This record gives sequence, structure tokens and C-alpha cells, in this order.
Amino acid sequence: MLKHKLTPLLKSKGELYSILNFRNIFRNYVGTTRDDGKKETPIHQKITFSGIQPTGTPHLGNYLGAIKNWVTLQKNKSETELILYSIVDLHALTIIPRDAKLLQKSKIEMTIILMACGIDPKKCLIFEQSKVSAHSELSWILSCITPIGWLSRMTQWKTKFQEQKNVKLTENIDITRGMDLGLFGLFAYPVLQAADILLYKSTHVPVGDDQIQHLELTRDLADKFNKLYKRNVFPLPQTILVPANRILSLKDPLKKMSKSTPLEYSRINLTDSPENISQKIKRAITDSQEGISYSPDTRPGISNLINIYSSFTGLTIEQVVNEYKNSDNKKFKESVVDVIVQNLQPIQKEVEKLKKEEGYVNCILEDGAKKANEIAKRNFEEICKVIGLR
Amino acid sequence: MLKHKLTPLLKSKGELYSILNFRNIFRNYVGTTRDDGKKETPIHQKITFSGIQPTGTPHLGNYLGAIKNWVTLQKNKSETELILYSIVDLHALTIIPRDAKLLQKSKIEMTIILMACGIDPKKCLIFEQSKVSAHSELSWILSCITPIGWLSRMTQWKTKFQEQKNVKLTENIDITRGMDLGLFGLFAYPVLQAADILLYKSTHVPVGDDQIQHLELTRDLADKFNKLYKRNVFPLPQTILVPANRILSLKDPLKKMSKSTPLEYSRINLTDSPENISQKIKRAITDSQEGISYSPDTRPGISNLINIYSSFTGLTIEQVVNEYKNSDNKKFKESVVDVIVQNLQPIQKEVEKLKKEEGYVNCILEDGAKKANEIAKRNFEEICKVIGLR
Repeated sequence: MLKHKLTPLLKSKGELYSILNFRNIFRNYVGTTRDDGKKETPIHQKITFSGIQPTGTPHLGNYLGAIKNWVTLQKNKSETELILYSIVDLHALTIIPRDAKLLQKSKIEMTIILMACGIDPKKCLIFEQSKVSAHSELSWILSCITPIGWLSRMTQWKTKFQEQKNVKLTENIDITRGMDLGLFGLFAYPVLQAADILLYKSTHVPVGDDQIQHLELTRDLADKFNKLYKRNVFPLPQTILVPANRILSLKDPLKKMSKSTPLEYSRINLTDSPENISQKIKRAITDSQEGISYSPDTRPGISNLINIYSSFTGLTIEQVVNEYKNSDNKKFKESVVDVIVQNLQPIQKEVEKLKKEEGYVNCILEDGAKKANEIAKRNFEEICKVIGLR
Repeated sequence: MLKHKLTPLLKSKGELYSILNFRNIFRNYVGTTRDDGKKETPIHQKITFSGIQPTGTPHLGNYLGAIKNWVTLQKNKSETELILYSIVDLHALTIIPRDAKLLQKSKIEMTIILMACGIDPKKCLIFEQSKVSAHSELSWILSCITPIGWLSRMTQWKTKFQEQKNVKLTENIDITRGMDLGLFGLFAYPVLQAADILLYKSTHVPVGDDQIQHLELTRDLADKFNKLYKRNVFPLPQTILVPANRILSLKDPLKKMSKSTPLEYSRINLTDSPENISQKIKRAITDSQEGISYSPDTRPGISNLINIYSSFTGLTIEQVVNEYKNSDNKKFKESVVDVIVQNLQPIQKEVEKLKKEEGYVNCILEDGAKKANEIAKRNFEEICKVIGLR
């Protein structure tokens, strides 16, 4: 059916599409499905969506684990690709304290840091999730085809719930037993996330290990929707395998580096001063074994530092170990400080500059929301028609 | 604080407000909360919200149990009251089959019937829920303050779930056990319903028995939101006690009259012909006891017919029983048919007229959505500011 629909399009836009791989167009087809025979709207061959929560100042873990990958994706973006990066403030409501000013401040801060890290609003859409109403609207529609059981199996929900309530979930959870099960928004989180992705008919989503299960759910929902309504509305988004880069706490290198722990010395914020960075790395927990070697299981502290060094320099783990195998911890830590400071300084300089131009940053967000809304509204109206809301 | 805010308003609008009960203004205050000292937007002293699902042709149970009360509320509406009646199509997604055309058709049909029954778009807003995006948006925000336990206690969810799955829920439900727990939308239903009501800062909601628990949840959420964010954003909506009017199935008078049962003879649709009504009432299950008497427990069939007769004529149950105590079933049934046909004929005439004016009906819905959106957007922006999304 799709092949049939594409034929007239390919003929009329032959010049453009002749250079593209036909099989890819077919697979990643994301235009609107129309029955009236009218010309299709222009299509993006590839639509990439990712979101980041505005919860306080980002740290090295956020930068090396997510933001740096976003910049790389943007660099490799082709003419026919659309990239959307969203500040997912609606998701932040599930975890941050009820502090309106903090949330508002965090959103601007996150936008500034994204731009300072190299996210270019001329190449990608940067926008606040809550400015595009169709995220919540599609989330409701998807919730009406989501079996509760699909959600209760989500590992992240179980983990976050355990963290919040400081309890261990057993195999069986009794949902009739009152208020002890955390907030509903946390449970509903993956449905909104699926809506975020599907709203733009995204074909590609960069995800870390902890999000693979949610993307699987998104694909299941897209597939279920298409089959229930017998229309090929949503492409099944593919995972972009981003280099697994789990930066660990400097104080407890068995856990991820995290904003939520009160231990300030456990993380390096992107806005930390060189002195601060130096102190934090010096105090980072390592072991007393001589020399530098990489073994995440037996030497988690030093391995974490090797990983940070490798991530910033682009050297492989082996190359780093080779270079420093005869160094002591102190000397290696100094090199780590140097490479962090060197890499963060241009970002921090840009952050300072953008902080003075908050009006401009707000304009970027407004513009991003406007463009995201154009796509979202078009797609959402199509979805509404398919299910009978219009 | 509110008293202080109201003082300047009362002075400047003295003429209008002097005739009102000051304590009521204070209690039902629903204007926007502003800190900048600017003049408050005009307030409605009373805001009434109710919703009806567009799921097939309404029957006598819908008419006598809900629609007739809506008309009465509209008749009693004062100058300072705002009434919103919503065709809640988003809620319908939780129960109706995946049939886009049926949903679309049901929405128009429901609107026509509401208008034919006397709902006047000049006096109330009639609109489709899905045309006001802030319903879904506020639903997400509320879900982030709703404990899962509050929802799992909802009787209606348990009942509907049991009906859908044809299983009996035990005390303990295991939410980790896969897909057998029904759809998430059905579970999330009361949160969207709370959003429907609170979005307009509704002060009054007409509810039947089966919705009292949901309204209680709505009040709890309004109260929790106000306390969490330390702002008096939402009034706690009051229940309008509508006469409990449970019209029962003509074939199984222990159950409610329902659209979902396949037994066509169990219900009288508002569009049924006089012949059809006559046949259905004649075939209605009664008992072989002589004479007419009212006893819902021992004589559910005949008591249901007495109730229908009483509802249409405005006579009390006692008056009806008195009038027909010496009649036989056949004669009483004939009177019931007469009174139904008499009351439905003007409605049906109006339905036929409006069916030919679908463009006009659509205009009414568009206009209703426009006005509802104006209020919803203003309130939603205020809510967003309070929680830090703006």
C-alpha cells in the first residue's frame, strides 16, 4: 500500500529522491496517510527524538552519557533528517520537589547548557515539552490501548519507586492496598514518553541502557495502534545505540553519578570551577593498588576516572591505560582534572555569555515550540481522524 | 487573603455584587489568583460542569437519569452562573470499540439529542472534550500528585474491569502479573474526570450515585494541589444532588438500562418509534401478582415502570400507585407507553429537524469549544505558572 502511495511522489520529486536509497524511504516512510489521493506532505526520511529532564545543573554523567551524543547526532545529521530535542518538563513533575521557581530556572539553565555544549537551534528543534499540548493529548489516547500489565513490568518504575519509598518490591504488588504505591504519574511515565516519540512519527531514538525497555514499549504501542486502527500511522522507532557511557559517582563508584544525591563531591557539575573540579577529583574514591589499570568490577573508582579521561580525549580505554600504566593515582588524577577543565572551559564561557542573553534563549525555546507544534498538530489531527475524534 | 482581593472588585462592581450574598461570593470565589495587584478577571459565582459519553443512541435511562436533570439545571441557572456540558469523547475511548466512524457519528447524534431535549447553546456551553487540549494536559499534571492507591480503590474501575474481563476481582490484585488487568485508560479515567471538572474551576457538579466516589477524588486532588503549591487555585467542587433515578433494564430489572447489552428489547432509545416503544413495554418483564404496587426488591419490573411513569408525569410514586392500584399490568403498561410516546415525540421531531441541519450543529460545537478553550486556556496558564511550567 505504501509503495503504491509513494510512486506518484517519487515521480514528481524524482530529482530529490533519485539520490536516496529507495528501500530506506520505504522503511522509514513517515508522511501522513491520506485516502483522498491528494499529494503527500513533504517527508523527512529520518526523524530523531530525544528528551532531557530539567532537574538542576547537569553533571559529567549527563554530558558524557547523553548531551555529547546529541551533539554527535547533530553533526552527522543529513539534509533529510529532522532532530527534535525536548526539555521534558512534564516528566520532571514526577520527580522534582514542588518548587515552581526551581523548575522554571532549571529549564532555562538546561537550555543554556545544551546550547553551550553545541546543540545548534538552526540544526535541531529545542523546545519545552509542556508548550506542545499534543504530548499530553496523545498520551491519553495511548493510555487507552496500553494494558496495565505492560506498565507494571517496567524496571525503571520499580527502581524509582523503591528509591522514593525506600522499600524493596516483591514479585507481587497489591494495587488495592492504599497509598503506598507512589504517584500515578511515575507509573504513567512510559506512556507519556511513548507519546513524546510517536507524536513526531520519530524513526530514531538515541537511548541509554536504562531506556531500552521504554523504547520497546513505545514500539509495541505503535504497532498495536497501527493494527487496531488498520492504518500505518506510526513508524516503529529504531534505537540509536549510543556508546554506553555510564559515569559513576566519585564517592560511591558502584552507583551512577546523580543529581539527586546530597553528596556534592559525588558529581562534577558542568558549571564547576577548575578549583572545584580539582578538589572533587582529588577526593574521588580510588583504591590503594599501585598503577593504573581498568577493571570496573575490582577497581570501580579508578576505572571510572579512566572512562572519563577516555571519553574526553577520544582515546580508547587501552590507549589511556597504556599511557598511564606506570603513573600513580595522584599523577593520573591531575591529568583527569586537566582534561575535564580543558573541555568544560569553553562550555562554561558560552554558558556565561548565554546567561546574559536570557531573552535570546527564550526566543529559541519559543521558536522551537512553534515549529514542534506545527508538526505535532498536523500529526495529532491525523491521529484524531483515524480514531474518530474528528 | 481572598477577602482582601475581593474588596476593590466589590467596590467597582458594587451595583452588580450588592445583590449577591457576600458569603457565597467568598466561598465560591473562582477568579484567577494574581499577585501583581491587577484587576481580577470577571468571576462566575457558580460554575457547573457535567459530561456525557458519546456512545450510541441515548436511552430512557440516560434521559431520565442525566439529560433531564441537565435541562432542569439550565432552567434554574442564574445570571452569574456558567454551565458547561461536555461530550466526553476522550472518556469514550476507554470503552467503545475501535470504530472511528461510530464515535464520530455518536458525537453528532448526542449533540443533536441534547439540543432536542432542551439544552440551549445560548445558555450553556456544549462542546467536545477532545477539542480542548487542556483536559489531557491537566490530567497529566494531576496524575503527578495522585497516589496510585487512590485510583485502585475506585469501585467503578473494579466493576467495569470485571464486566470487561468477566472475572471477579479478589481483594488483592497483582499488578505485576501481565496483561490481564485491563487497559490503563480505564484505570486513569477518574484523573481525567477530575481534570475535566477542575480545569474550569467548577464549583458544582451534578452526579449520580455511581459518580460520588469520583467527585470525592476530584475534591481530594483539588485540595492536595492547593496545599502542595500553597495557592488557592481550585475550589472544591460541590455535589449537586440529582434525584437518584436509576432506570432499569426492561428484560432484567435488577440491572441498569444499558447501551452495551445486545438485548435491544431491554432499553427504549430516545429515537424509538411509538410502535417500537409499545412493543418493548408490552414485552417488559413484570410479575404475575395482581394490581400495581411499588416494591423495587420484590417487584422490580413493575416498580421500574412506575418509576418511568412518575418521572415523565411529575407525579410522585404514591400518586401513581394510587391512580393505578386497581389496574392490571396490561392497562398500566398502555398508560406507560402513552406517557413515553407523548414525551418523546416533541424530542424526536426536533431530532429530525436538527439532523437536516448538521452544519448548524457543528457550528454550535465549534462555538462551544472556542468559548470553553478561552476559559480553559486562561485557567491552564495560571496552573502552569503555579507549578513552574511557565
